Amino acid sequence: MDSLSHRKAAVKIRLIREDGTPLSGCPVTVKQLSHQFLFGCGAFDSMGYQFAKSKNDDQKAEFFQTRLEKWLKLFNFGTLPFYWAGYEHVQGQPQEAVTKAAAKWLKERGVTVKGHPLCWHSACANWLMQYSNEEIFRLQLERIRREVSAYKGIIDIWDVINEVVIMPNFNKYDNAITRICRDMGRFKLAKAVFEEAKACNPNAVLLINDFNTSVAYEILLEGLLDAGVPIGAIGIQSHQHQGFWGPEKLHEVLERFSRFGLPIHFNENTLISGDLMPAHLEDLNDFQVDSWPSTPEGEERQAKELTEMYTILFEHPLVKAITTWDFTDGAWLHAPSGLLREDNTEKPSYHALYKLFHEDWSTNATVQTDENGILSLEGFKGTYELTCENLKARLELHVDHTGQLIMKNES
Amino acid sequence: MDSLSHRKAAVKIRLIREDGTPLSGCPVTVKQLSHQFLFGCGAFDSMGYQFAKSKNDDQKAEFFQTRLEKWLKLFNFGTLPFYWAGYEHVQGQPQEAVTKAAAKWLKERGVTVKGHPLCWHSACANWLMQYSNEEIFRLQLERIRREVSAYKGIIDIWDVINEVVIMPNFNKYDNAITRICRDMGRFKLAKAVFEEAKACNPNAVLLINDFNTSVAYEILLEGLLDAGVPIGAIGIQSHQHQGFWGPEKLHEVLERFSRFGLPIHFNENTLISGDLMPAHLEDLNDFQVDSWPSTPEGEERQAKELTEMYTILFEHPLVKAITTWDFTDGAWLHAPSGLLREDNTEKPSYHALYKLFHEDWSTNATVQTDENGILSLEGFKGTYELTCENLKARLELHVDHTGQLIMKNES
Repeated sequence: MDSLSHRKAAVKIRLIREDGTPLSGCPVTVKQLSHQFLFGCGAFDSMGYQFAKSKNDDQKAEFFQTRLEKWLKLFNFGTLPFYWAGYEHVQGQPQEAVTKAAAKWLKERGVTVKGHPLCWHSACANWLMQYSNEEIFRLQLERIRREVSAYKGIIDIWDVINEVVIMPNFNKYDNAITRICRDMGRFKLAKAVFEEAKACNPNAVLLINDFNTSVAYEILLEGLLDAGVPIGAIGIQSHQHQGFWGPEKLHEVLERFSRFGLPIHFNENTLISGDLMPAHLEDLNDFQVDSWPSTPEGEERQAKELTEMYTILFEHPLVKAITTWDFTDGAWLHAPSGLLREDNTEKPSYHALYKLFHEDWSTNATVQTDENGILSLEGFKGTYELTCENLKARLELHVDHTGQLIMKNES
Repeated sequence: MDSLSHRKAAVKIRLIREDGTPLSGCPVTVKQLSHQFLFGCGAFDSMGYQFAKSKNDDQKAEFFQTRLEKWLKLFNFGTLPFYWAGYEHVQGQPQEAVTKAAAKWLKERGVTVKGHPLCWHSACANWLMQYSNEEIFRLQLERIRREVSAYKGIIDIWDVINEVVIMPNFNKYDNAITRICRDMGRFKLAKAVFEEAKACNPNAVLLINDFNTSVAYEILLEGLLDAGVPIGAIGIQSHQHQGFWGPEKLHEVLERFSRFGLPIHFNENTLISGDLMPAHLEDLNDFQVDSWPSTPEGEERQAKELTEMYTILFEHPLVKAITTWDFTDGAWLHAPSGLLREDNTEKPSYHALYKLFHEDWSTNATVQTDENGILSLEGFKGTYELTCENLKARLELHVDHTGQLIMKNES
């Protein structure tokens, strides 16, 4: 049995010329242009690129461009930051110009863009704390309305609320969102923010996202879904700075969270290529180091673990997206968590993922049509270019189907 | 400041004779007869006593009687078993006669009785498994209707549902309740069983009960309360076979679960007087030993830890009940978890709790009335007998109040 049959579709499709004659017995070059599956990565560098360009910093812009070209060779799904502290550092001055430029730049290059996150207790604007809880809640809903509306059509996937399990108990520092979550409760707050986002963009995919994969998150989801909260997909974080979860935990998490029948997005994945963070630390943020080197053995291990993890996730029918959190080393926590080193050179993990996405999980072949011009093809779901002699056509391969396609001279 | 002021009430009450004259300047003996606080314990032995009597086994009946006399000297709140597997071992033959006899026997002796539990995946009737999930659910509601109605007025406190956090994920063995919980979800099942119990006895105190005291239980409670489930008190299990929680964990649990503003019952408390169970075991039921001896050092430790724990809990205003799970050693898991040894001799823990309940947390004194016959008294909430010369009266001391009381000759 093919463990990836759910990722594929089959067609029997008649290829004809513009004059209606079939392309009989013709060798057709089948080339996969894009994937239905969301192969994602943090795309924060596209903001850096826009900043550099806006400041005419050519050298920096070029550096980011090199990096982004490598990014685009691998991924079709990018996460852009909407942390309230950064996006609206000064009340009333949202950083819309650069963010929108970055989102559009990605979209023009075939990338699906996700905004992260709309409601979170961390990286939350400090200026909110001068307000009463009623006001904070009102401002939270206003912000959701503003962002979801402003980016509609450019960003239609949102991490609506982040880390709700710990939200009211979060005690590292006072912040506006923990205050209102403690006051209203997790369920009332989550329901309100989801409903606001849904009202502003009814077709958007709205995510809840958490690093807590215990039964607590299950129960939260169960209660929210019972209460009719419009959760479109379940986000699971998997920052593995303290070591690879391994297949057993991955299967166990997949089993528990697939029970809801909703799409699952592995929203924030990290596997590092250096020494592991000590296991006794509970909060990853408690490990602050000046330098955290990538090592040759670590890089081999990272590539191997990423391959194993992505393979398990790709085999699970409900997983619709996997996002590598850091594209390059030295970002969050200075960890060697990237697929590129800080100088933009490619690590083995980059090549490992390239092989998976664009070789193992792509369909590229030459297939002969039969005497009636029928092309029989099974391939990974996505968009294809078919070429036969000087004729071309696009094929959307998302479900099994039959039909007819006109091949045109596009030269 | 008095850390126990919430446990006390004050009266200024005029004591008069039947002819209306005040008992001026009279020394009044104040004796606390019972407590408002629920000092609880498993009362399963009262069933053993009824069985022995019903079988005319005098020796066994006498043994249980000795045990129960010691029980009654200490406690005013008893838990009776309603495990479905035991209560209705054969479908349609509930063990109502003995259970009701035991409940009445306790009630006649001033004991408030609780039934435990109405819905639980463990100790669940095997015959249920022949039915479809719809049928199991219907039978579950029927059972609740039957028991809650049959015992109304005798048992008005129920553990309605037990261990919901793990219920759908429970995988030690197949059982009917895990099946329906997995099928319906925790929220729908819990809501249904609570509503059924409430409909049958609207004034009953209905409890949810769990050994899981993590954020998962918090979230479950939050969602259930948001959904309007009539939870009357939060039950917390504290089986400490692997060692005393200590004050830090106790305070932390109290803080998190007091957020709901509901009464908290420490429903199942265990502290053992022998070697501790190995810490690596996750499920207490995985530690099966033939003999688990009580030791002199262990008995001293148990008494000390019980004193510390009860003191912390009694100081918290929302804690309304504490139940010691095993009255005698050698019951659940054969653990040395009792206040009596198996031969009914008293352990230091028995005396430690006696001292707390009936000396430190009881009010017994001789108080002089003033020239107008007014008795000024502050005491632990409960029922009192006042005696002056050959005159007596009962005083209900539950809230601060003033008033007048007629002292009568009861000899």
